[in-house]
Amino acid sequence: MIILTINCWSYSVRYQLFDWDNNKVLAGGTVERVIIGDSFFDHEIPGSPTVRIEQDCPDHRTAIELILRTLTSSELGVISDISEIGAVGHRVAHGGEKFTHSLLIDDEVMAAVREMVQLAPQHNSNNIAGIEAAQALLPGIPHVAIFDTAFHQTMPEHAFIYPLPHEWYEEYGVRRYGFHGASHLFVSRRAAALLGKPATQCNLITLHIGKGASLCAIKNGASIDTSMGLTPIEGAAMGTRCGDIDPGIPPFIMQEKDVSPREMDTILNMKSGMLGITGRYKDRRDIIREMEAGDDRCRLAFEIEAYRLKKYIGAYLAAIGPLDALVFTAGVGVMAWQIREQTLQGLEIFGIVLDKEANRKAVSLESEMKISANHSPVKIFVIPTAEELVFAEDTAAILAGTYTDPAHFPYSFARADFKRTYHLPDSNRRDAGEG
Amino acid sequence: MIILTINCWSYSVRYQLFDWDNNKVLAGGTVERVIIGDSFFDHEIPGSPTVRIEQDCPDHRTAIELILRTLTSSELGVISDISEIGAVGHRVAHGGEKFTHSLLIDDEVMAAVREMVQLAPQHNSNNIAGIEAAQALLPGIPHVAIFDTAFHQTMPEHAFIYPLPHEWYEEYGVRRYGFHGASHLFVSRRAAALLGKPATQCNLITLHIGKGASLCAIKNGASIDTSMGLTPIEGAAMGTRCGDIDPGIPPFIMQEKDVSPREMDTILNMKSGMLGITGRYKDRRDIIREMEAGDDRCRLAFEIEAYRLKKYIGAYLAAIGPLDALVFTAGVGVMAWQIREQTLQGLEIFGIVLDKEANRKAVSLESEMKISANHSPVKIFVIPTAEELVFAEDTAAILAGTYTDPAHFPYSFARADFKRTYHLPDSNRRDAGEG
Repeated sequence: MIILTINCWSYSVRYQLFDWDNNKVLAGGTVERVIIGDSFFDHEIPGSPTVRIEQDCPDHRTAIELILRTLTSSELGVISDISEIGAVGHRVAHGGEKFTHSLLIDDEVMAAVREMVQLAPQHNSNNIAGIEAAQALLPGIPHVAIFDTAFHQTMPEHAFIYPLPHEWYEEYGVRRYGFHGASHLFVSRRAAALLGKPATQCNLITLHIGKGASLCAIKNGASIDTSMGLTPIEGAAMGTRCGDIDPGIPPFIMQEKDVSPREMDTILNMKSGMLGITGRYKDRRDIIREMEAGDDRCRLAFEIEAYRLKKYIGAYLAAIGPLDALVFTAGVGVMAWQIREQTLQGLEIFGIVLDKEANRKAVSLESEMKISANHSPVKIFVIPTAEELVFAEDTAAILAGTYTDPAHFPYSFARADFKRTYHLPDSNRRDAGEG
Repeated sequence: MIILTINCWSYSVRYQLFDWDNNKVLAGGTVERVIIGDSFFDHEIPGSPTVRIEQDCPDHRTAIELILRTLTSSELGVISDISEIGAVGHRVAHGGEKFTHSLLIDDEVMAAVREMVQLAPQHNSNNIAGIEAAQALLPGIPHVAIFDTAFHQTMPEHAFIYPLPHEWYEEYGVRRYGFHGASHLFVSRRAAALLGKPATQCNLITLHIGKGASLCAIKNGASIDTSMGLTPIEGAAMGTRCGDIDPGIPPFIMQEKDVSPREMDTILNMKSGMLGITGRYKDRRDIIREMEAGDDRCRLAFEIEAYRLKKYIGAYLAAIGPLDALVFTAGVGVMAWQIREQTLQGLEIFGIVLDKEANRKAVSLESEMKISANHSPVKIFVIPTAEELVFAEDTAAILAGTYTDPAHFPYSFARADFKRTYHLPDSNRRDAGEG
């Protein structure tokens, strides 16, 4: 079966097309700058150079139309007609407490996803737009929802309840949900395979560091804590998101500067993190370059990011107990060896010993690398993520009736003999989406 | 010399009167429910039962007048005239970046403390009221300011800068300051004495858990990180303060429920933490009692508090490196052995091994106890705090011209042969003030 995966962000749409029966990625790509103008589509067929198509996409539907038209075009296509597509897997940001696993989208599911827009306004509304467009353009085939939050639904109450008025939880669903679920799931299963242990016997800390960044504490294969919360602002210091801050700061600044809640939300989401500290850069490559050229503010941003990651590793070790491995993934996690080195400095006391030379070399988005010293009790891996593979496999398994849930489904990529046959287009290498 | 220490909170004033030359506490006590009505004064002379005086105190000045009148009264007094008081040491909540150590209060200092009211509106304004009242009532003698934030001014930039717009730091002073400085200082010096090592060679994590709660990461005797931030809301889950939460939650609730920044500030300060989770209790004794009687929400609050402390211990271990000791202090830290046991569970992997039996017995506000197992590589101490001793000693040393700063001054209580001759009145036993 041909399976299309769709991943809608605020201003981009990413897709991959799988020939699932033959374990093959037919094509993949991203439409960037959707809505905001000057949109372009980077489309890639494995083995061929990326093709860039410039076309204005004022909404997500136009972007999906562009993807489908390209996939079936005589020149750049890989299928002859969209009727060859058998199913679509959609990433949905927020599944709340209702959705603990992927499932077939019907009216009831859509209604629930719409209800959750209040919990993730910038996220779920993009996903709804994507699902509605894809259902209209590809009617009569199954569409499946894969929730970013589902993998974290195994968290215990003491990890997900905030020390806030309890009625906010009961009435508004204010609790920790966590995101990047498919990514933490994927790399945790790959790590288990590399360790040669069943996933359900592995204790791991996974660090997904892209534009957005989250860490996950995984005990016996299940998420027991994660750094993002109700929203994707909490946790690590990110490209433009603040991560953990004193909750007294937003009300203080709102009163001092007469800033509205909506404006504050925008500042915390779009103008904080690395961009806030440096005043100029959110891309870690820029920050590391300027730091090496002597810029103090970039050095500070770099040190803050690594220091906060280091503290999370310590915190999650305390939560998990004896650890099998640490895993770095997503664009920054895979490419920025300097951040890994800085983060792991001094963690030898926990039995986490980096092989600095191996770490410097581990900057490939196509291969999995061990970067711990051979004598390190805790292994350290760099594992490129492949969320789309989770979307596609969940979709296929749901149609086949074999799917269970993220914690128990025997994913193909959990096997030791799994070979990476998928391929990430260039535009995705820098980091893993807007998440 | 007779030294008076004054500690003004929003609704209470605490004092102690020292005969400094003879290393003796003459009296101590607290006026409770200042401003809010039904005020009362618990006054204690060491060796005698606490006396309660009921008198309305509509402001801090009236409370200080009551204290001075009582201290010189024929029946309950310990001095014959207020002219015997040679100096006053005032705790001041927020010293910003300007004040890295205690100092004599003059017009310039008062102007700077007033400027900092914006950083700690509920705190510094109480301290200003207290200083002004005491200066009027006790004119012509030196008044000294001891800042809650000063001990933490050794934090490195990567620990105190938030991933927020940098101009907030430059224009509004938005950064991590930390509080409870005198307490973290006191117990860290006592721990060094118990360890038999110079303070400057001790790596410690100190947990001050009262109504407010903060942890401090101490490396070579100096604070390198602390859990409270710009305000005392950040960090551990407290009696009524939220501690760490997703910074996206306040703007979300403000929009959903149409709550103003000021109201939100009140909720995060006064209606969150243990009170928020349980809906009823902020006092840990109530929570533990109800938990033991089978109340699920109280069990959850208990587990959340301990889980979050546990994660901080892991985080600070990662920041500090090899640790000499953990120290619990303040009302809850000293009295709630159940919270200590729950917090430390599973931390044996870090070489932190509790002696459960010793822990249960360590519930005295008058003695220092080691509660780690004899073979535990990291020692665990319960050390009742004595912030007033820091206030008094700084005051005496400033007048003597021997004072330096919190990190370097050779405090009397840092000596191995130090004997606790001070005494905390009953009203202070439950927890250490409002901080």
